[in-house]
Amino acid sequence: MLRLKSNSSQRWLSQVESNLDEILIDHAHCERKAASTAMGLMNSYAERRELCDEMASIVIEELEHYRMVLDVLDSRGIRFRQLRPSSYGSQLNALIIRTEPQRAVDKLLVASLIEARSCERFDLLRKHAPDKVLADFYDSLFESEARHHATYVRLAEEFAPRAEVQRRLNELSEAEAKIIEVGSELARMHS
Amino acid sequence: MLRLKSNSSQRWLSQVESNLDEILIDHAHCERKAASTAMGLMNSYAERRELCDEMASIVIEELEHYRMVLDVLDSRGIRFRQLRPSSYGSQLNALIIRTEPQRAVDKLLVASLIEARSCERFDLLRKHAPDKVLADFYDSLFESEARHHATYVRLAEEFAPRAEVQRRLNELSEAEAKIIEVGSELARMHS
Repeated sequence: MLRLKSNSSQRWLSQVESNLDEILIDHAHCERKAASTAMGLMNSYAERRELCDEMASIVIEELEHYRMVLDVLDSRGIRFRQLRPSSYGSQLNALIIRTEPQRAVDKLLVASLIEARSCERFDLLRKHAPDKVLADFYDSLFESEARHHATYVRLAEEFAPRAEVQRRLNELSEAEAKIIEVGSELARMHS
Repeated sequence: MLRLKSNSSQRWLSQVESNLDEILIDHAHCERKAASTAMGLMNSYAERRELCDEMASIVIEELEHYRMVLDVLDSRGIRFRQLRPSSYGSQLNALIIRTEPQRAVDKLLVASLIEARSCERFDLLRKHAPDKVLADFYDSLFESEARHHATYVRLAEEFAPRAEVQRRLNELSEAEAKIIEVGSELARMHS
């Protein structure tokens, strides 16, 4: 359902285990960036009513999650701070074709894949969290990431025929799997 | 309280009277842009907890207003579309000094002035609206613009001493009054 071409490795779970605080701080930044991506799509396609309606909902939801992650940080006594991001997002963004309408399709599909990977990792986090509070937290976020993934794919089909969207999603998903397999030595949500 | 150096002229009210549909469409875009400005500030100062908390609230509130304006358009049978913006925003943004911490101060103060001008114009719209539904709508939005204005000024004081912020606000407010006095032949929320 999530159109991912790989499952996260044990390597990432080991990073989570050794660097949980950093993963949580990065998670807050990821929610902010997810809101910002949806906001950027609204700005780029400001006359597309359905896209803008959906993006407004996603921005609001991601910012609500952002606040929830900050509350989790507070409750665990973790100081929020800036973090150097992993290269996952920039590597995926580099794959986006810059001419329309392919740009819109690619931007939406890259967003869909990031939501899908987050969803897959929230599933792992809810299963491997060190305590029930954190497990419940990731359980509560899981569903919305899956939903956002589906929304982004559906919106891409407003810009190109379904078969073309599926072909490109397959291609980008192969690339995503390679990027996430290499990972990053920085412990991050998408390392 | 709003630190504006001028009141809107009869010229603008005449534009509203002759081009209400366009003003309403532009209003929807203004709410989106206001959300985008707050989102951009979150991204630029992602480690500033208080600023990010306030910006998250403002983004959510502006997008709720965006939806409300779209509902108003629907109820009046006005088709939402892209509009060429007036030069108000770009003229104000051109005044922003690009080196920190002045950039932060200027960005926050420019945002505060746009909120102030919107507030002043919502006040006129609630008084001069052609029907009670629209008058009530602008009455309901009035308070939040005043509140956002105050929030932006307060946050600027996190980046520079209060006296310096007041001096710069005075300067930018003088510039804003000149820009809005010249206006634009396009009928817009800030023409």
